[in-house]
Amino acid sequence: MTFFPTIQSFDDALASLPSADMRATAAATWRQAQLTKPEGSLGRLEEIAIFFAGWQARERPAIERGRVAIFAGNHGITDHGVSAFPPEVTIEMVRNFERGGAAINALSTAAGLELTVVPLALDRPTADFTTGPAMSETECLEALSAGAAAVEDGLDLLVVGEMGIGNTTPAAALTARSFGGTGRYWVGTGTGIDFEGLARKVRVVDAGLARHAGAPNTAFETLRRLGGREIAAIAGAVLAARLKRVPVILDGFITCAAVAPLAAANAAITEHCLAGHCSMEQGHHALLDRLRLEPLLRLSMRLGEGSGAAVAAQIVRSALAAHAGMATFAEAGVSGGQ
Amino acid sequence: MTFFPTIQSFDDALASLPSADMRATAAATWRQAQLTKPEGSLGRLEEIAIFFAGWQARERPAIERGRVAIFAGNHGITDHGVSAFPPEVTIEMVRNFERGGAAINALSTAAGLELTVVPLALDRPTADFTTGPAMSETECLEALSAGAAAVEDGLDLLVVGEMGIGNTTPAAALTARSFGGTGRYWVGTGTGIDFEGLARKVRVVDAGLARHAGAPNTAFETLRRLGGREIAAIAGAVLAARLKRVPVILDGFITCAAVAPLAAANAAITEHCLAGHCSMEQGHHALLDRLRLEPLLRLSMRLGEGSGAAVAAQIVRSALAAHAGMATFAEAGVSGGQ
Repeated sequence: MTFFPTIQSFDDALASLPSADMRATAAATWRQAQLTKPEGSLGRLEEIAIFFAGWQARERPAIERGRVAIFAGNHGITDHGVSAFPPEVTIEMVRNFERGGAAINALSTAAGLELTVVPLALDRPTADFTTGPAMSETECLEALSAGAAAVEDGLDLLVVGEMGIGNTTPAAALTARSFGGTGRYWVGTGTGIDFEGLARKVRVVDAGLARHAGAPNTAFETLRRLGGREIAAIAGAVLAARLKRVPVILDGFITCAAVAPLAAANAAITEHCLAGHCSMEQGHHALLDRLRLEPLLRLSMRLGEGSGAAVAAQIVRSALAAHAGMATFAEAGVSGGQ
Repeated sequence: MTFFPTIQSFDDALASLPSADMRATAAATWRQAQLTKPEGSLGRLEEIAIFFAGWQARERPAIERGRVAIFAGNHGITDHGVSAFPPEVTIEMVRNFERGGAAINALSTAAGLELTVVPLALDRPTADFTTGPAMSETECLEALSAGAAAVEDGLDLLVVGEMGIGNTTPAAALTARSFGGTGRYWVGTGTGIDFEGLARKVRVVDAGLARHAGAPNTAFETLRRLGGREIAAIAGAVLAARLKRVPVILDGFITCAAVAPLAAANAAITEHCLAGHCSMEQGHHALLDRLRLEPLLRLSMRLGEGSGAAVAAQIVRSALAAHAGMATFAEAGVSGGQ
């Protein structure tokens, strides 16, 4: 099944995004005010519960079936020496995910989430975006649809993650094209490149921006020209989740960069998204700001794989447990405040 | 059993604190460097795993038996109108804890922790510290021992929490006496008192500091004169946990204030402690700084009960799961970095 068979179908979906259920939002807000605690004293846990109520359209939301979807892709841009790791590592890490040995395996299990790994044509890296578009239209549509296909019916939560050696470089390029700024502003050290590698990344991003400066300024063209398969898949998954009203937890710089071109076209795209964490990657803080997202965690993480978002899912579980499980003042016979 | 039968026994324990196991710390640090991720990329999750390894004295620490201990006490100081809630709420909330209706019940369950509630002579509030010591020597020793008794053998983690209407006022007084500064600096709005109430709290704290200015400047005397039963119990629990090398997660302003007099006497007391979160209570950020603790979470919480620390325990679970469950580069056949 192809979720986005045409560019038009993608554009149409992005242009008319559904909203959260206002009745469930109101019911959950009312419930929060009656629970045995000073009003507002659970802080962001209260906001999270109300947010989930709205997207799950029920007063007491729950995560019975939460999924981490990791998308993996390879990048022609690695020929420029923009990563500390060789591109073979993408395939090796996908194997590690499948065998259960990666951080995200342990973190998904700890958070009670199922894990889906979606490798995208790892033997066919995207084209070098400094010389032309990273993907053909068909390749980009296929990647968007592969992402959307990971949003099965019946999910209560989607956590998006990625694996793709070299992918902080296209992520920086996408972000710069979506929100302005140059390579120098958006490029960081990724998995740990040295100073010279960082300078190369900046040059590659700036070259890509210059190469595609005259292209149509749409979400699709930005993704296609400067992105990658796993990045387009994340964009497709986040958009498909919105159409199904499934709340999403974004992970680090790359997952947020995947949403950047969509947000530049329609800022409402992040309304069903939580930012799991703020990573150490240089541009992430500023990118979260552009996406109008306040991260749940700041734990100095910079791994990707959905790792920070999977940890943040634990916070969501706590928030929903308190919301659903607490007694009201009336039920508990507790006196109210002044 | 009385854990601290004499003041001397308390002073002695505080003066000679055991350290973490260096061998387990080294083994866990070495293991982290071999796991399939860029070095350091799990950020604070790596630090947490190594911290737990040291205190649990094993390369792969785990939480099989983690306990939240909530201590509850009442305060004569509430006669001054320093809280938004009436003092009966302490007893009502203890009943709510026992029936499972409070936030901490849901949050403990979500984090897989057992919950112990320790009410401390709720029908006998402490004395008004503006006119004399809050507790007699015997009362303070009893409270310290009640706290210590909650640290049963075999715990892998202790989360401390509190309930005590009015207790941000003694907490501010303890902190001011331990680290300097006046009421105005350390007093916050607690559960949500109004502007006039805040001014009353400041005056009460300053009056207490003046009243006891000439008293011996020891941890015990500070706790006894300006603290409360639940606060002394937390101090006793944290100290007893240290003697048993049980890692502790501190919660909000009050649990940290309970440790403040101990830290003023021996700064090493916080070495086995994590700060679960930074609460919204005005003085907490500065107090964490004095205790040399960087909070795991900043979720705008201000409930107490151990709620923030119980949420933080979820982060610890994720950290330990990744540490224990991940494959090494060699095991997974993944290529290393540059």
